[in-house]
Amino acid sequence: MKGTLYLIPTTLGKTPENNAIPEYTLSILRGLESLVVENIQTSVKFLQWVGDTIPEYKIDFYQLNKNTPDTEIFSFMKPLKAGKDVGLLSEAGAPAVADPGSKLVKMAHQNGIKVVPLVGPSSILLALMATGFNGQAFSFHGYLPIDSNKRKQMLIQLEGESRRHDRTQLFMEAPHRNNELFKAILETCTPQTWLSVATDITLETEEIATKTVSEWKSVEKPDLHKRPTIFSIYAK
Amino acid sequence: MKGTLYLIPTTLGKTPENNAIPEYTLSILRGLESLVVENIQTSVKFLQWVGDTIPEYKIDFYQLNKNTPDTEIFSFMKPLKAGKDVGLLSEAGAPAVADPGSKLVKMAHQNGIKVVPLVGPSSILLALMATGFNGQAFSFHGYLPIDSNKRKQMLIQLEGESRRHDRTQLFMEAPHRNNELFKAILETCTPQTWLSVATDITLETEEIATKTVSEWKSVEKPDLHKRPTIFSIYAK
Repeated sequence: MKGTLYLIPTTLGKTPENNAIPEYTLSILRGLESLVVENIQTSVKFLQWVGDTIPEYKIDFYQLNKNTPDTEIFSFMKPLKAGKDVGLLSEAGAPAVADPGSKLVKMAHQNGIKVVPLVGPSSILLALMATGFNGQAFSFHGYLPIDSNKRKQMLIQLEGESRRHDRTQLFMEAPHRNNELFKAILETCTPQTWLSVATDITLETEEIATKTVSEWKSVEKPDLHKRPTIFSIYAK
Repeated sequence: MKGTLYLIPTTLGKTPENNAIPEYTLSILRGLESLVVENIQTSVKFLQWVGDTIPEYKIDFYQLNKNTPDTEIFSFMKPLKAGKDVGLLSEAGAPAVADPGSKLVKMAHQNGIKVVPLVGPSSILLALMATGFNGQAFSFHGYLPIDSNKRKQMLIQLEGESRRHDRTQLFMEAPHRNNELFKAILETCTPQTWLSVATDITLETEEIATKTVSEWKSVEKPDLHKRPTIFSIYAK
């Protein structure tokens, strides 16, 4: 009997209490002795927060980040094939979404390992719910290009895709460049285009607002510097 | 002081226990006396399952479905403007995603009402996590066309979009037409294209599998009839 690969979301930031993860998800996590993680140190902190009763030295950690070669990811199949359950943890939010975990999930399917996704917070989904835009059709694009010309081109492309297909367009930026991206959106997009800005989702400092580009231009802008933010645009 | 609009996910099917909704989300729901729902009868059943202590006759229900005119949705702002907190409940999964609730959310933003999305299950997000495909870029397209020629065209279009933009493509079908759509995908898509089929997510009967179209053709197909399913394709 092979083991199961559990996909376990983590909190979206440091919170004193647990408002975002079902007890069932935590109970599965507390029982696992093999974990695939992006960063061992932060994962240990998360396990302590969760109240994991398995001592840290008894847990086998496998590190998976964007530099991990496929051959090494393949070696993570070993415990699963030997019948051990394994958890895939993200650094924040849902694993295998906007992080390198999806390669492990694909390998699990290819090797006949059962994959079970568990419920928890996802900034992308929570932001989408709160946009007020079309939720029947949407696209997520990850990080936008850093180069200002390429970023501008991409924004125009996303606005066009939204208008042509009636699709909400979600994207993000490295938190220290959020204010820059916000400014670029206001400069690039049509005044009638809708923009939703969702910052610090699930944290006490959460701020979510949806306005047209022209409305955003006339109000005081929130300071998004170093605060995790999902941007969504919707053009009709 | 205006009220807050809480976006409250519901379970994805009937389950004896709660494996998918954080206690915090349920505690907010249990305290609300005003609820916007798609269907009052199923919502009352959900409230009973949740162990709501507010008697049903003390709750103001506002019905919002795809036929509700905008003027009526606007009247739902009344309790919020009067300082009452209101919950928006979906029939299954996250509200305002693949359901008509987004109109209410947009109006809330336009009227300066605070919008707070709460964590819970979403078949789209859970399916995406479990695909093993690119989670850095993805699109959800809702229901595919019923007409077989248009559906075929759409599948070819989605395969092209996936290949061109390296984007996972998610979509669904009315559950009684799932087997038909499954067959159409196998007939239409390239043998090398990846297909993930995620059925009965979060239920005891959950089945998730990812294979190439050509692999799917050579194995026994799961019976998806009347079972909620998210389909994902990924072409490279």
